[in-house]
Amino acid sequence: MNQLETIYLEDNAVVIIDQTLLPGTVKYLNLRTIEDVWNAIKILQVRGAPAIGIAAAMGLFIHMNNVACATKNLESFRSEFEKGRNYLSGSRPTAVNLNWALARMTETFEAAVTEGKQIDDIVNDLRETAVGIRTEDINVCRSIGEYGAELLSPGMGILTHCNAGALAASKYGTALAPIYIAQERGIPLKVYADETRPILQGTRLTAFELHRAGIDVTLICDNMAAMVMSKGWINAVFVGCDRVAANGDTANKIGTFGVAVLAKNFGIPFYVCAPFSTIDPATPAGADIIIEERDSGEITDMWYTQKMAPEGVKTYNPAFDVTPAEYITGFITERGILPSINKNIWGDNC
Amino acid sequence: MNQLETIYLEDNAVVIIDQTLLPGTVKYLNLRTIEDVWNAIKILQVRGAPAIGIAAAMGLFIHMNNVACATKNLESFRSEFEKGRNYLSGSRPTAVNLNWALARMTETFEAAVTEGKQIDDIVNDLRETAVGIRTEDINVCRSIGEYGAELLSPGMGILTHCNAGALAASKYGTALAPIYIAQERGIPLKVYADETRPILQGTRLTAFELHRAGIDVTLICDNMAAMVMSKGWINAVFVGCDRVAANGDTANKIGTFGVAVLAKNFGIPFYVCAPFSTIDPATPAGADIIIEERDSGEITDMWYTQKMAPEGVKTYNPAFDVTPAEYITGFITERGILPSINKNIWGDNC
Repeated sequence: MNQLETIYLEDNAVVIIDQTLLPGTVKYLNLRTIEDVWNAIKILQVRGAPAIGIAAAMGLFIHMNNVACATKNLESFRSEFEKGRNYLSGSRPTAVNLNWALARMTETFEAAVTEGKQIDDIVNDLRETAVGIRTEDINVCRSIGEYGAELLSPGMGILTHCNAGALAASKYGTALAPIYIAQERGIPLKVYADETRPILQGTRLTAFELHRAGIDVTLICDNMAAMVMSKGWINAVFVGCDRVAANGDTANKIGTFGVAVLAKNFGIPFYVCAPFSTIDPATPAGADIIIEERDSGEITDMWYTQKMAPEGVKTYNPAFDVTPAEYITGFITERGILPSINKNIWGDNC
Repeated sequence: MNQLETIYLEDNAVVIIDQTLLPGTVKYLNLRTIEDVWNAIKILQVRGAPAIGIAAAMGLFIHMNNVACATKNLESFRSEFEKGRNYLSGSRPTAVNLNWALARMTETFEAAVTEGKQIDDIVNDLRETAVGIRTEDINVCRSIGEYGAELLSPGMGILTHCNAGALAASKYGTALAPIYIAQERGIPLKVYADETRPILQGTRLTAFELHRAGIDVTLICDNMAAMVMSKGWINAVFVGCDRVAANGDTANKIGTFGVAVLAKNFGIPFYVCAPFSTIDPATPAGADIIIEERDSGEITDMWYTQKMAPEGVKTYNPAFDVTPAEYITGFITERGILPSINKNIWGDNC
């Protein structure tokens, strides 16, 4: 396998790559019980919103499959379903995709019951939905990749920030999807990965997955992006997103806005790779997005074995920033590339 | 003492703050032999070009003071001087200020000999020069601070990058000098310190010295500067410099250029604090400055106790970048503030 697969179902087990061991060790885990899946989400062995959603759906399926034989009737089967759903829902309550995926599973369960299906058939339907969520994610990411790859030609330099790659989804990812599709098409690129302080997703995950896939990747510190751009090494920037407001303002990992400002300064196109599921018409503009502030220890500690900052120093540690729409060249979605700065950019698609 | 003193002479010992223990431990060392001084420079207990120069001059003085009693004649005294000078010169051969300071000591030695002075008087002259180099540095930095402080008013937010503070010189530093002078004048400021990857001089040294001096400092990751600026929290940027070309292009710690681009984008004045000694009329423009590339381990390792980047991944690790003159609002020097973008910015002063 050239590209990593983050999560899939095999022999009634949820197979995941243990992301807590990356980049040092590549180890796949076979999660065979709902408790295994709950724990894997909890301790971040699987992370990234789409991947967590898939894990939850698959976890609920394997649970219902495990209890199907021992279950006497539909009533106790339904009780097990609800118990399992609520249990998984508590693994990382802030992850939107987790509850979205569990709701999809509930719809499937209720529809099968309404149709008068037997327990074994209900289990089959649940499997189909869980696997289907993963397939949909792969298709959405692949489609983003195909549209994005149209922008690429041999020898181009691409800068990316944080990890919006295969490890955050099931396959391809969003911002890295065009790069993987370009590789499939034999288009060689030079990718620069920002390390992405404070948590280093660029170092630990993006550099890891691209390097392993045989893509030419160079790791830089975030503050080197201006120099790399000034040398003419970057032809386009691709980033992912956590939420896109109705006006196109985009929340993404802290540091994204700075990269967008640099790109604009150097005349480099800046693309946000966004599944339609991340577009939030209910949020009018970036100013309406509340930014999570995280623990100062991420900045002051986690370096060698000693504290690197003076005891008691203040920090400011926003986890995300908002890039105003005017800095964004376009949004690469599964339905095509949409220009930014357009009052009705989402049209009737959203 | 409110502000830290990096290096001074006391009771015929060179007193330094051990920078290898910062920020966890503040410990002053009394270096009483030339070997102590050589070692302190070698293992970075004292660092920063001006501070290294002062250490070398003081180290050579204490050596000559130590051997004066046992020395029979001028010939063996001169031989000790030359031995000591060459020994110290090898402690960090790339530091320009080190040899500049040793040359100053040699001039003093030769002048005293020419004047027919006795050994004790020569030792006194050497002490005077060594202490004088430190005093000059303090005066230059203080003067930069006074000119810079004219730009400041209560409540302003200042962003700085890397460490161009007291710990890089003898007192005040360059980029932090206006902040210290403002504090003396009772002007409260809010300082934001970029952590400055990969070596974290902002975290370990700038946040440390400002915090200890009672100045309101907030530590951020480099990639948070755009967000902090966009919030209107920054009124001016002050940075130091390693070399200023004749046209005003300025080499400084990696990441400086990016901060300058952001400042320009947000309409924030960007000042380079530059002693005239860092202006190099022999270098026509920034493109003529060769940028050192450092070891990839600075990016890939030094995090917890494990390697954080995938084995074998490429890195690009320039230690400095060059900020083109058009991004620089002005140069704060010991002779006043000079505007950038002026074909003859240095006039007859240089």
